Amino acid sequence: MAGSTYGRLFQISTWGESHGKALGVVVDGCPAGLPLCEDDIQKFLNRRKPGQNAFSTPRKENDTVQILSGIFEGKTTGCPISMLVFNETQRSADYSEIAGYYRPGHADYTFDVKYGFRDYRGGGRSSGRETIGRVAAGAVACKILASLGITFTSYVRSIGPVEIDPQRFDEAQISQNPLNMPDAVAAGQAAEYLSGCKSDGDSAGGVVECIVHHLPAGLGDPVFEKLSANLAKAMCSIGAVKSFEIGDGLAAAKARGSENNDGFASTENGLVYKCTNHSGGTLGGISDGSNLLLRIGFKPTPSISIPQQTVSRCGEQLTVRVKGRHDPLIAARAVVVAESMAAITIVDALFANMYARMDALLDFYQK
Amino acid sequence: MAGSTYGRLFQISTWGESHGKALGVVVDGCPAGLPLCEDDIQKFLNRRKPGQNAFSTPRKENDTVQILSGIFEGKTTGCPISMLVFNETQRSADYSEIAGYYRPGHADYTFDVKYGFRDYRGGGRSSGRETIGRVAAGAVACKILASLGITFTSYVRSIGPVEIDPQRFDEAQISQNPLNMPDAVAAGQAAEYLSGCKSDGDSAGGVVECIVHHLPAGLGDPVFEKLSANLAKAMCSIGAVKSFEIGDGLAAAKARGSENNDGFASTENGLVYKCTNHSGGTLGGISDGSNLLLRIGFKPTPSISIPQQTVSRCGEQLTVRVKGRHDPLIAARAVVVAESMAAITIVDALFANMYARMDALLDFYQK
Amino acid sequence: MAGSTYGRLFQISTWGESHGKALGVVVDGCPAGLPLCEDDIQKFLNRRKPGQNAFSTPRKENDTVQILSGIFEGKTTGCPISMLVFNETQRSADYSEIAGYYRPGHADYTFDVKYGFRDYRGGGRSSGRETIGRVAAGAVACKILASLGITFTSYVRSIGPVEIDPQRFDEAQISQNPLNMPDAVAAGQAAEYLSGCKSDGDSAGGVVECIVHHLPAGLGDPVFEKLSANLAKAMCSIGAVKSFEIGDGLAAAKARGSENNDGFASTENGLVYKCTNHSGGTLGGISDGSNLLLRIGFKPTPSISIPQQTVSRCGEQLTVRVKGRHDPLIAARAVVVAESMAAITIVDALFANMYARMDALLDFYQK
Amino acid sequence: MAGSTYGRLFQISTWGESHGKALGVVVDGCPAGLPLCEDDIQKFLNRRKPGQNAFSTPRKENDTVQILSGIFEGKTTGCPISMLVFNETQRSADYSEIAGYYRPGHADYTFDVKYGFRDYRGGGRSSGRETIGRVAAGAVACKILASLGITFTSYVRSIGPVEIDPQRFDEAQISQNPLNMPDAVAAGQAAEYLSGCKSDGDSAGGVVECIVHHLPAGLGDPVFEKLSANLAKAMCSIGAVKSFEIGDGLAAAKARGSENNDGFASTENGLVYKCTNHSGGTLGGISDGSNLLLRIGFKPTPSISIPQQTVSRCGEQLTVRVKGRHDPLIAARAVVVAESMAAITIVDALFANMYARMDALLDFYQK
Repeated sequence: MAGSTYGRLFQISTWGESHGKALGVVVDGCPAGLPLCEDDIQKFLNRRKPGQNAFSTPRKENDTVQILSGIFEGKTTGCPISMLVFNETQRSADYSEIAGYYRPGHADYTFDVKYGFRDYRGGGRSSGRETIGRVAAGAVACKILASLGITFTSYVRSIGPVEIDPQRFDEAQISQNPLNMPDAVAAGQAAEYLSGCKSDGDSAGGVVECIVHHLPAGLGDPVFEKLSANLAKAMCSIGAVKSFEIGDGLAAAKARGSENNDGFASTENGLVYKCTNHSGGTLGGISDGSNLLLRIGFKPTPSISIPQQTVSRCGEQLTVRVKGRHDPLIAARAVVVAESMAAITIVDALFANMYARMDALLDFYQK
Repeated sequence: MAGSTYGRLFQISTWGESHGKALGVVVDGCPAGLPLCEDDIQKFLNRRKPGQNAFSTPRKENDTVQILSGIFEGKTTGCPISMLVFNETQRSADYSEIAGYYRPGHADYTFDVKYGFRDYRGGGRSSGRETIGRVAAGAVACKILASLGITFTSYVRSIGPVEIDPQRFDEAQISQNPLNMPDAVAAGQAAEYLSGCKSDGDSAGGVVECIVHHLPAGLGDPVFEKLSANLAKAMCSIGAVKSFEIGDGLAAAKARGSENNDGFASTENGLVYKCTNHSGGTLGGISDGSNLLLRIGFKPTPSISIPQQTVSRCGEQLTVRVKGRHDPLIAARAVVVAESMAAITIVDALFANMYARMDALLDFYQK
Repeated sequence: MAGSTYGRLFQISTWGESHGKALGVVVDGCPAGLPLCEDDIQKFLNRRKPGQNAFSTPRKENDTVQILSGIFEGKTTGCPISMLVFNETQRSADYSEIAGYYRPGHADYTFDVKYGFRDYRGGGRSSGRETIGRVAAGAVACKILASLGITFTSYVRSIGPVEIDPQRFDEAQISQNPLNMPDAVAAGQAAEYLSGCKSDGDSAGGVVECIVHHLPAGLGDPVFEKLSANLAKAMCSIGAVKSFEIGDGLAAAKARGSENNDGFASTENGLVYKCTNHSGGTLGGISDGSNLLLRIGFKPTPSISIPQQTVSRCGEQLTVRVKGRHDPLIAARAVVVAESMAAITIVDALFANMYARMDALLDFYQK
Repeated sequence: MAGSTYGRLFQISTWGESHGKALGVVVDGCPAGLPLCEDDIQKFLNRRKPGQNAFSTPRKENDTVQILSGIFEGKTTGCPISMLVFNETQRSADYSEIAGYYRPGHADYTFDVKYGFRDYRGGGRSSGRETIGRVAAGAVACKILASLGITFTSYVRSIGPVEIDPQRFDEAQISQNPLNMPDAVAAGQAAEYLSGCKSDGDSAGGVVECIVHHLPAGLGDPVFEKLSANLAKAMCSIGAVKSFEIGDGLAAAKARGSENNDGFASTENGLVYKCTNHSGGTLGGISDGSNLLLRIGFKPTPSISIPQQTVSRCGEQLTVRVKGRHDPLIAARAVVVAESMAAITIVDALFANMYARMDALLDFYQK
């Protein structure tokens, strides 16, 4: 069934396979009047571009975006924005071997069961390259949010057993190390850990954290369209994500109410604020004016060259080593993907909230 | 914005407030010909009924369901099934005090910001009673699944620091202790822990686990309608949920690929199966034929009688103790809610998968 | 498949059968702060109530509405509004005979083919009583529109061969004759025509017209969510509707461009307006600031007591006369249904238009 | 708001402007295993291609389609099919003049009001070229339908005052005259009529008819997702459509029940069929096994070179003659557009109907 469209009001429809002609996205529901050019998109795509360092797939792609519609005289028109990236270096020959068996940890088996066959070149639609469309759309969403002062801090919190130390948190570091960690020491340790994985032909998992600043209170709709619920879906729709947490997350389940509740206080001007932020920015699924704190766990890259047990499409037992050009870690390149999905979800919630009250409706149409 | 409808093909629309006249749900998209009666629904509602033991709110409600449409001669007709439960013992007086301030950990503040005012009686729409509609719909979904042999094992895995011991896992225990734990020893320890919380005027968090057996492979649609993504949304749409995991969940982010990948093997009859189940039943977001393993963390009940700092609607600083009839633990009564949301999501995915292939379409219309 | 929910942002979910326990609707997405009480709804339901005159079914129902949720202290809360009407005088015995055969012009056959069986009591879900939910929701929509000054003039334009004379158009007449015609003379002729049909055991078709005043320009979204397209769906979703026209409608297809185009002019204050209104209030599917003009054709009531040829469920040829309590005309009681569906569609478009421009978004969140 | 996606299960998202870089569509929800190549699409696009005869715009475009995703080894994979056509001969200079004023009958004014500005080159998104995406998607839908034996006969029924004579109906004629009329005599008269319009600088309206053969009974979902209601929306979403009729359409409103009802009979094998087809193929909005008969009226092309009264964007009164390369008639080239929209809607209904009954669900998953 149709599953490549996300969002209710700000809608994205992604398409494309790892080794097809191109990959892209149609963004529908972007308000008119947003200044937007290819460079805005390219900056985001460059953050997920492969081949940039030792821990990323050696496949080199320029991933140059083209905007085909929805922009006139440098501004969005309110009509669908179609964007695409042509695949340049698809080396399908690499993949012909995997046509015949199911790679452990990949979607080969489930696609075959579901559809009867699959585009086996590089994972086809289940490839990480599918996220190109998400990131291009995320660039648009982030530009909308930026115009409202809403900003992101997104980074890798841990890789395998190596976790950042909150004491050493340094936002500037994120773009300065290839692992996108806000802690130079941890980044160094993680690099060492990853080198070990790589030389073993193995791979590592990791955790990405995303903080959203200056989000207005009131976003999200009871009861199924909670902001937190939609963020959970957005994040868990990214390939390889196995856990989602908001605020204290899993730790909240071990806490007592007196530890977990965030008290309220008010400023001299009568502005209400929370004294702590265990909730991670939502109460009852609706944004509460604090920072949004999201944490998602990625499993290790399933493609490893260590021998693994599997079966052929005919059911024969096989031992395989997966070749090809793969990242030993998904989390680092996924930081911008997570940020994009969060941004898309938040834009949708911003729009949805605009008609929550009769007075807003009257204001809008009676002035 | 409209947020009380969930599901694409099997759709539920819930309505009602804690202290309104009634709460209910409209289930639309249920196939015709399913035997269904009020007793099927009542059994599920009884599993979430308040007032049943020492660790549940002393508010007593019969929560007797009525089916008002969609059934004829004992079977579903294919038309919407409307079900409701009248509120019987709403004691609004209890709540008049909380009209004026924001209870920490509750949605009072966010509803006020969003809507300009709120139904303050017992949390209104953000009350746990909202889940009545979900559970009534979940009973329908579970009956559909049961007809296909798909079954659930759902229970409390941990309460505060007390976790079940896999060695002592005993499914029969789940319905035999008031905490719905599959381990009598842990249940005893948890009861003790909860008694302590209660006598302190405090509350506890907990983790619920849900295992789905005999799910066919192939459910879920790439890329945004992954089964795992929809389950994440379904679970995180339940009030008080702060974390979602599938399979090894958060632990996968610490593992190496060689540990996390599940190898494939085949039976003598050529049936493919996974040798392990770290993935928790999905690959690429599509069900892989293994059990589905879901784990969700609930924060502690926010209503506690320990003094807390907050502000009034006018911004004055206050210290409050929240009165009323509250559970010291959400997780135990939420087991059936989690199972319901999982079931509704799976039914939706079962339907969506029916037209994934041309041969299925030809089969259906040409016979 | 789920088909009882209508609307993207302002959503209604109707349920109930002609001879079930009750019929109702859940309205989701109504902004908070709208004053609303049962009397607002009852007035609308009374306009479609059966048993009020010689040309309406003799089935007498009070159709007393109850609001079960979504209202607090006399105002909408932003949460779903659940409304229902209990069936009082269902005389199912009348219908037992029709269980066995397919009434010509009814949905008996198609429901049987689709679902394998049907609720045969009074047409079940395909009964005209299904519109109760639409009208209750329409009352809410009309109240929202009224607060913005948007009003309706809805009436019967023709019955069988009898058409109103524009020269005699008198809005006050609409509520003064049982046929809801704005022309007393035509109403008299139509009554005579209907009496003839009735004494023959036959029935008549009719055309309903709906004019919407003071609609702001800019509503509707290119290209599939055109206001005109959604109105077409809304209207054609009403049972027995066989044609939809906007503006000059069918006549536009016979006109030349020079006759059909509406020129523009401007007021002294620079306000742009159309000099004529052949378009019927939309250009490119977007409201253009003129009155919306809609026209829908209803087929004659299919239940007639003239003998008709049909078959039994087993395929035997039969000649039948349909008994029961039926209107000889659908159009008159459907006026309020058409108005309701138009109003629901327009509210949805009003909401959708609120985030068409970046400046509106900035205004909303930055003040 | 997002408005460029159509369909619930078989979903199309179109994008592109008349004078942008390209136009295209993403088709999502197409089952896997359908043989599909660019030639299948091109044949459809050629039916709507401009510049083919004296009554079509002299703008010449090859409109060569490229498929960028969703096909592997000649078959659909179940993943989104992205298709596009690059614009080749956009002569924007033609349009610079119209930037400053509102063309009567066009969407210039409504786009400006809605979005604050517009892509004025050739109508931008409101251009007839927007239908390229619909037709490319329609080709896919028609191929699915053809595999089930469902076929179309679509043609122009009338142009201005010239109507086909049912006695002379000759399907072979449709593709043999440039006006797509199934009656050579009427086509000749219409050509003469159009020549007159053209030499006057004027344009003509027309009516398109679409017959769908071999549609199974049971398609469409009560109550809002009636097949007839969705067809009404699909058709009225096409630019310039002002009326929609099914079966006898508007004439049904003048008929008596005894004339309008279709009796039932059965074959020797017990197959039920309708003796007549006034209903046009649906009963209660659900397909009844007869041919589907749809009729839509197009207004005359609004671009005419006869002087018209209008205003500039600043509100100044102007008299204008619209230049550019325009068809004097929309209906002929719209035949394939109407057929495409009908096909897309029917595919959606076919999918939706697959899980209407429990026995179908059990069949599918238990074999």
